[in-house]
Amino acid sequence: MLLKNDIQALKYDKGTGELNNWLITETRFNPETLGKVEAVFSLGNGYMGLRSATEERYSKEVRGNFVAGTFNKFLGDKEVTELPNAADMTEMALTLNGETFQLTDGEILDFDRTLNLKDAELSRQIHWRSPSGDEYKLFFTRFVSLDNKHIIAQKVAITPLSRDLTLKLNSGINGQITNTGTQHFKEGVLRLYDQKIMKLEAHTTESNIDFAHFTRHEFTLENDTFTPKNTIFMDRRKIFTTFEPETIKKNETITIEKISGVYTSRDRDWENVDTALASFATVPNYDTLFQAHRKAWRTNIWEQYPIQIEGVDFDQLAIRFAVYHLTGMTPAHDNRMNIGAKGLSGEGYKGHAFWDTEIFVLPFFTTSNPKIARQLLEYRFLSIPGAVRKAAENNYEGAMFPWESAWLEDGEVTPVWGAADIITGEPTKIWSGFIEQHITADIAFAVWQYYQFTGDQDFMEKHGYELLFATAVFWQSRLEENSDHYEITGVVGPDEYKEHVDNNAFTNYMAHWNLEKAIHYYDLLLQENPALLEALSSKWDLRTNYRKWQEKSSKLYLPQPNSELVIPQDDTYLSKKIIDLTPYKEASQVGALFLEYNLDQVNDMQITKQADVMILLYLLENEFSPEVKQANWDYYEPKTLHDSSLSRATHSILASDLGDKELAYSMFEKASRIDLGQNMKSSDPGIHSASIGGIWQVVVNGFGGVRMLDGKLYLHPHLPEKWTALQFPIYWKGSRLLINVTKDTIKITNTSNNDVQLTLNGTEISILANTTFTNN
Amino acid sequence: MLLKNDIQALKYDKGTGELNNWLITETRFNPETLGKVEAVFSLGNGYMGLRSATEERYSKEVRGNFVAGTFNKFLGDKEVTELPNAADMTEMALTLNGETFQLTDGEILDFDRTLNLKDAELSRQIHWRSPSGDEYKLFFTRFVSLDNKHIIAQKVAITPLSRDLTLKLNSGINGQITNTGTQHFKEGVLRLYDQKIMKLEAHTTESNIDFAHFTRHEFTLENDTFTPKNTIFMDRRKIFTTFEPETIKKNETITIEKISGVYTSRDRDWENVDTALASFATVPNYDTLFQAHRKAWRTNIWEQYPIQIEGVDFDQLAIRFAVYHLTGMTPAHDNRMNIGAKGLSGEGYKGHAFWDTEIFVLPFFTTSNPKIARQLLEYRFLSIPGAVRKAAENNYEGAMFPWESAWLEDGEVTPVWGAADIITGEPTKIWSGFIEQHITADIAFAVWQYYQFTGDQDFMEKHGYELLFATAVFWQSRLEENSDHYEITGVVGPDEYKEHVDNNAFTNYMAHWNLEKAIHYYDLLLQENPALLEALSSKWDLRTNYRKWQEKSSKLYLPQPNSELVIPQDDTYLSKKIIDLTPYKEASQVGALFLEYNLDQVNDMQITKQADVMILLYLLENEFSPEVKQANWDYYEPKTLHDSSLSRATHSILASDLGDKELAYSMFEKASRIDLGQNMKSSDPGIHSASIGGIWQVVVNGFGGVRMLDGKLYLHPHLPEKWTALQFPIYWKGSRLLINVTKDTIKITNTSNNDVQLTLNGTEISILANTTFTNN
Repeated sequence: MLLKNDIQALKYDKGTGELNNWLITETRFNPETLGKVEAVFSLGNGYMGLRSATEERYSKEVRGNFVAGTFNKFLGDKEVTELPNAADMTEMALTLNGETFQLTDGEILDFDRTLNLKDAELSRQIHWRSPSGDEYKLFFTRFVSLDNKHIIAQKVAITPLSRDLTLKLNSGINGQITNTGTQHFKEGVLRLYDQKIMKLEAHTTESNIDFAHFTRHEFTLENDTFTPKNTIFMDRRKIFTTFEPETIKKNETITIEKISGVYTSRDRDWENVDTALASFATVPNYDTLFQAHRKAWRTNIWEQYPIQIEGVDFDQLAIRFAVYHLTGMTPAHDNRMNIGAKGLSGEGYKGHAFWDTEIFVLPFFTTSNPKIARQLLEYRFLSIPGAVRKAAENNYEGAMFPWESAWLEDGEVTPVWGAADIITGEPTKIWSGFIEQHITADIAFAVWQYYQFTGDQDFMEKHGYELLFATAVFWQSRLEENSDHYEITGVVGPDEYKEHVDNNAFTNYMAHWNLEKAIHYYDLLLQENPALLEALSSKWDLRTNYRKWQEKSSKLYLPQPNSELVIPQDDTYLSKKIIDLTPYKEASQVGALFLEYNLDQVNDMQITKQADVMILLYLLENEFSPEVKQANWDYYEPKTLHDSSLSRATHSILASDLGDKELAYSMFEKASRIDLGQNMKSSDPGIHSASIGGIWQVVVNGFGGVRMLDGKLYLHPHLPEKWTALQFPIYWKGSRLLINVTKDTIKITNTSNNDVQLTLNGTEISILANTTFTNN
Repeated sequence: MLLKNDIQALKYDKGTGELNNWLITETRFNPETLGKVEAVFSLGNGYMGLRSATEERYSKEVRGNFVAGTFNKFLGDKEVTELPNAADMTEMALTLNGETFQLTDGEILDFDRTLNLKDAELSRQIHWRSPSGDEYKLFFTRFVSLDNKHIIAQKVAITPLSRDLTLKLNSGINGQITNTGTQHFKEGVLRLYDQKIMKLEAHTTESNIDFAHFTRHEFTLENDTFTPKNTIFMDRRKIFTTFEPETIKKNETITIEKISGVYTSRDRDWENVDTALASFATVPNYDTLFQAHRKAWRTNIWEQYPIQIEGVDFDQLAIRFAVYHLTGMTPAHDNRMNIGAKGLSGEGYKGHAFWDTEIFVLPFFTTSNPKIARQLLEYRFLSIPGAVRKAAENNYEGAMFPWESAWLEDGEVTPVWGAADIITGEPTKIWSGFIEQHITADIAFAVWQYYQFTGDQDFMEKHGYELLFATAVFWQSRLEENSDHYEITGVVGPDEYKEHVDNNAFTNYMAHWNLEKAIHYYDLLLQENPALLEALSSKWDLRTNYRKWQEKSSKLYLPQPNSELVIPQDDTYLSKKIIDLTPYKEASQVGALFLEYNLDQVNDMQITKQADVMILLYLLENEFSPEVKQANWDYYEPKTLHDSSLSRATHSILASDLGDKELAYSMFEKASRIDLGQNMKSSDPGIHSASIGGIWQVVVNGFGGVRMLDGKLYLHPHLPEKWTALQFPIYWKGSRLLINVTKDTIKITNTSNNDVQLTLNGTEISILANTTFTNN
């Protein structure tokens, strides 16, 4: 028997013509797997993210609307600050001839739900037979405007097919929503204005952010707009109106628009609730809003990132899906905000930013939209006070960046307790917030990478140098002297299945890199901008630090490849027990291992959660030989569960480097299906930001072969066998290049007024301003 | 076409033999009307109340478990303290051969859900065909133990009928529950003990009450207990286990017990979480628990209150239903707690106590179980500090009892904002907390009524006199001098559709009564217990007050019957506009009027929400002639919407007094169907405590004709035409009388060792100790 959950519910090939590889379609309604589509089809504009829960409610839905940067901490030891779930404005409860419209009742004669990536619009068409046998056609659409970031627009068209329709709609604003039971809002004023606009105010309990939610409705019957009978209804944290239009004739279509807006006191242009209302009051209707929204997507997104893959339709869709979510998750409007590990698509990871931003997502922006990349790095700069506090609390110096980061001054916000330990029956302690320290070097790395790609001297002078120095100040204070060398003990590396390890290779190398870069730029500024250096010196005591950097960096222990060329992941990893991981690698469920072992036990085995040594080999690629890379791949990959969505993209890029196109492509295939694939559970708490950034990296850095090494641009494409062409844009020192790779040719169009130097397949070339270079 | 909601879903006649008129049965599953059965079938033991939400979850369910007295106030201006919704322990998510058990899916071949009042046990039997065509029988039972007040016991038996069954159960403790979006708990420790007992701790945010929730499971296959494969799972505010037993053969029955316990630091015997765990660990299995529970109901409830009605089966069921809920809603174990206006069956009225307790519910206990009545009055005594504070805040003296009352020291807890004003679009201000002041006299009245019925001198000396005096101190300070008399302006009377009225008759008469009783008992104590009077005098300055009582009481304006014998409800009522209320009286929905008028408009019309002058005529019945009563009935009843559940019972009793048996019975029929009837919406936020107390009053005080007037017991039955017999117990001055009324005879059995004096149908008689008196 084929069970519901076995059916491939998502289709990728419904788009044709202009919409070819732009549509993702859910082809059957399943009340058990709502979370998948809520997250994967979520709508967003960087200001807010809206899970695609349906207009009608189901018991297993998780409705969610998250406004970037509006963090709040609930009462209690177990809480950390998180993005609160704003009031729900998408519910529209329909009663059709006395019967509740609900897909669990009656019969679904036709159904699909489609995310149109091109227009960033969600639609749902249903032919429904009610329990009593009446038939209706319903067509729902909605979008979250990229043009007016406060606006959610919805429309539903209903056509009764069997007989005339007496319709009742109950719709409004519901502030009873929580974050898995945690209520972040004090209830505020409810109000109906002019029998038209409903308002719900709410105020976060601790961070005192004001939220103003508005919604209004418009009814159209066969092109005529009208006002139906309506009754206002206020309940706790809730304002709804019941609309009861006159009877709709059989085969006529009634259309209902619901336009909603959310404004908060975190908005840079916030004045007060009344000005927000005044702004909302001028918002036009669905179709007008949609035109502006669609134009914004065309102009700002798809023309900005014209990434094309030919040969495999799914892959073209996947890269568009990545760009779609990279756009929706990124608060490009405000440098006080960063990207959550689940974007704005769910409660997972509480909206916190991790190293995921710098190592997995930022390369997309650094390469494709440097302005946004700069803002994201400015966020880290603005977060320095919290990082300094964290360092001081741990008896270190400089800026020790939090493992998880929320609002600027929050500092460390990683929760302390996690999932159940199956052996002891107690919650597992999460050590990352205490000892996963490599993020401080990862941020420095991203700053440098941004600088090398963009040459943005203004950024460096205002923010970049200080970030490089402040992080290096941390590292010198962090190093521990051990006879003739320095080391870093008691950390968690990228492999979070190993806690309290000594000399994690990734951490030590990255710290060393960070110190060396600080020394380099100290020397440089001493020559080129002594005034700036002086200013920074007085703030960070750089003279003293410079001496310590020099002394300690050269003596920092960097684990070297052993006789088999394997770099020890940490001091003890290679001496631990090895078990056969095949059953867990094949399990459909991430974390399958922990149904049989607890973390203490896994700590004692050669089991790696995700790329650890491998990410080192990728980031600092020119410090290791191809032989070392191959040996480490062969050693570590079989011991790696890829239990983090960050893992496979890195492995794919390395496989490309190692010349194994098939392996690279097979890793990409898995990586690109983490959210977009048929696993109906893994995305419930939200899409995987880093994985989505990783998809882009595999395409551009892996198959496209784009690299920056020592400040120079390299291009060495490795097109997968199945692909016939790949096109993508990159920025280099302010110049925009459009790169087009086929089986036979590489075409590089320089659209800027400057010549660009790069190394193409090992040969240095220069692409002149406003020309196209073609290599056959 | 017959719609779902039109069907008479509840049946009352399914019980036969021993269970005749003991069962209420829901005969069809309707996902739209879950709230009705959740509340009306709710289980309770006075310590906690559990809404009867199903084991599997539905989108329109409202799960609820309320522990008496555990009030907490959330942050924000709009919040008042309320009974928090404890963690849900009743969920049991079943997957049968890979399909989720959900009645909205597949086909229901047979279904009923039954509340057995006698055993206070809820059961549900289902024959279900899954979407893929497999058939199963499921039988669920549960109860909230009257023997061990912390315990909820559940059992489910599952029999696969088509093929072998692979079962998955996901079950545990879910603390993500809120009160309509408000989260009252800080998250506490989660823990699994011995792979068996799951624990979830939680702590109220403001009142700092610790909650410990425990649950455990037991599996039996064809009488053999076994431990299935299980996996623990912790999430935020949630601890669950997935159980996966070996395959169950076709036609075999697997039984799963889930035993849960809740303990809080408000418990008098609370020590800490560990002692609570130790206590929970000793709890026996379902069947053993059930024997003790059943015995407690037989002995403590049904033998204590053997109320019998013969002639109309529904009425017998209705009075048992009343006793069932009066038991479940009343925290008889702790005099620091009172009865919520919705008992413990829902969030409605936030668990607060109103005058509903003293005027509508307390007579049942005063008459039938004086020990509990005393405890409920002790609650008011212990609440005096909050009442004194309220008086002081309003520039009055003495004890001004809060309109809504929660924990002892809370004082006034009435929310300030209510439903939407349909004209202005703003929330309506609730004035009751400010100016509905009659409750202070109502409490004094109940104290006196209790004293008269019981002769409990100990209570009077410890609490009663002080309550009478403290309330009278308030009233003398409240009276306003107006030339030659005193008056009370700017109040809300029982008719809450009239705000800011002057000289509400009920309020003035009751205040006057309160003052007169204080004078009376002052005089009495001066003679009989001067030491006590002295102690109370020094506390309440009674010498001064006594003089003021005497002066002001005699001059307090008491609205007199006009030329048509109508007592003006207040100074302006009779001059207001009269409209035809027929459409609103016939509307199925309470509050139908407010879909067309706002409260300001209703304020200007002769429209009464509920018994106002009528309740005065009932409580102080011997101050008014039958002619005045009749004239006022005829005037006010047509203007009364009975929009409060308190209204009809009072009207029925008055109709009995006025000799209109048919009208009395017709009012009773409506009153007894407020919760128990077929209206599938009106009980959603909880059953109506006062209405349920009112049902008992109609039966015993109305049809049974039991009255206490001036300290004497009167009996004057008015059996409805359809009834052939009525039996009920009452206590009088510590003696228990069992009264049995038929068409022809009245039989009174005195089971005590004291003679009892009473006036039977106008004749004074004496019933000798341990004898039965029969009047043919």
